[in-house]
Amino acid sequence: MKKHKIYIIGMGPGRESMMTGEALQALEQSDVIIGYTVYLNLLGERFQGKKMLSTPMRQEKERCELCFTEAAKGKRVSLICSGDAGIYGMASLMYEIGKKHPETELVVLPGITAACSGAAVLGAPLNHDFCVISLSDLLTPWEKIEKRLIAAAEGDFAIAIYNPSSHKRKDYLKRACDILLRFLEGERACGYVENIGREGTKAVTCTLKELRDREVNMFTTVFIGNAGSEITDGRLITKRGYQVEEHTDLCRDN
Amino acid sequence: MKKHKIYIIGMGPGRESMMTGEALQALEQSDVIIGYTVYLNLLGERFQGKKMLSTPMRQEKERCELCFTEAAKGKRVSLICSGDAGIYGMASLMYEIGKKHPETELVVLPGITAACSGAAVLGAPLNHDFCVISLSDLLTPWEKIEKRLIAAAEGDFAIAIYNPSSHKRKDYLKRACDILLRFLEGERACGYVENIGREGTKAVTCTLKELRDREVNMFTTVFIGNAGSEITDGRLITKRGYQVEEHTDLCRDN
Repeated sequence: MKKHKIYIIGMGPGRESMMTGEALQALEQSDVIIGYTVYLNLLGERFQGKKMLSTPMRQEKERCELCFTEAAKGKRVSLICSGDAGIYGMASLMYEIGKKHPETELVVLPGITAACSGAAVLGAPLNHDFCVISLSDLLTPWEKIEKRLIAAAEGDFAIAIYNPSSHKRKDYLKRACDILLRFLEGERACGYVENIGREGTKAVTCTLKELRDREVNMFTTVFIGNAGSEITDGRLITKRGYQVEEHTDLCRDN
Repeated sequence: MKKHKIYIIGMGPGRESMMTGEALQALEQSDVIIGYTVYLNLLGERFQGKKMLSTPMRQEKERCELCFTEAAKGKRVSLICSGDAGIYGMASLMYEIGKKHPETELVVLPGITAACSGAAVLGAPLNHDFCVISLSDLLTPWEKIEKRLIAAAEGDFAIAIYNPSSHKRKDYLKRACDILLRFLEGERACGYVENIGREGTKAVTCTLKELRDREVNMFTTVFIGNAGSEITDGRLITKRGYQVEEHTDLCRDN
């Protein structure tokens, strides 16, 4: 039984109705809520009375340290992250810093990641084996991202692309599409979703060739279909087929 | 504006506290809840009064048809699926069958898939680019699964494996590990979680060599780390590194 406990919470796209009950309960029971300001501001009215702490962009390490500092004071602390804290979120960083704080238990409460929330808006683009790849080369060499895009194409995975663009990386989606176009046909069914679960949600379907020349922002999640994907009635659908024995077996663990 | 509407709901691992508010609200407002019996039974007391319909295993197509039949009667219908309905769930099948029912709108409400809920229990195994692969060859030729396992290994993805075993497929995880061991070291950090979010949740970390000989059941989700993953204090952690500019940029779309 550890002395302190910190909840690492995935808040989903941002809307409270897309958070889980256990995540909301943990926030309600917290003395201190720590997170990037953008996410703290997305929290509902009733949380705004709580002590909220943040650190500027690029100070994630300090933000995580802050969690342990507050927990050491005996405060009930929750760290919030958009989507799922374990997918491009703060969970692993918290565990790394947590090595110095063996008295503190870390509990990750999962949230709806953009691959799932975006897919739900777009149709069913990830309804078979898929990959999730971030195009940000801030923590990953571009060569590795390129290698993963190639592996995803060679494996005929559906692909969800996070962080397709930023102020400094305007052409990264184009570069990624050019790599994929070396392996996939230009007519490959694709789509993207902007501002998932927030004001101004926008879902678009297109071909890979068209996607190459689309301007997307950093609040966009991009989906590349597999060889069997199709666009029907404005939806991107990746089929599974279903006239097969024990189909539910496949469904059981999803 | 379509005449009818069907909600396709991801219920997460099963516990109501891991469902989203919008999913619960849709169920509360439904006249009819349709799903595989196992999932219907996981729903809370207050839903048990509603009209619940199911079809036997292997009759997913009929189950989906049932949704449209009930909706055509003017009923408010929700179809539930474990995890996320768009990940090895019924979403794409519903869209395929929906082509015959242009008067019915389909709304997918995302849920917590086992990749996220299992990762949260195990630590942070998917905290960088990852693949999700099902080992069931009921809808997918084994050769294709093998090809995807190889692509995932060559791309140095973290991997979440769904449906690692069933009564008829007892040795599939061993076969998958043998394929991965052709590319990955035997000491590769791995783990698995049984009964996520249900009675008897059990998380285990091990090496890939050890994983090969573990007996897992069909309620297990398996995680293979990437080259940088490590097991610390019984947790499987896939690092991202964080002393880099604009880290939050990476977090923004998760």
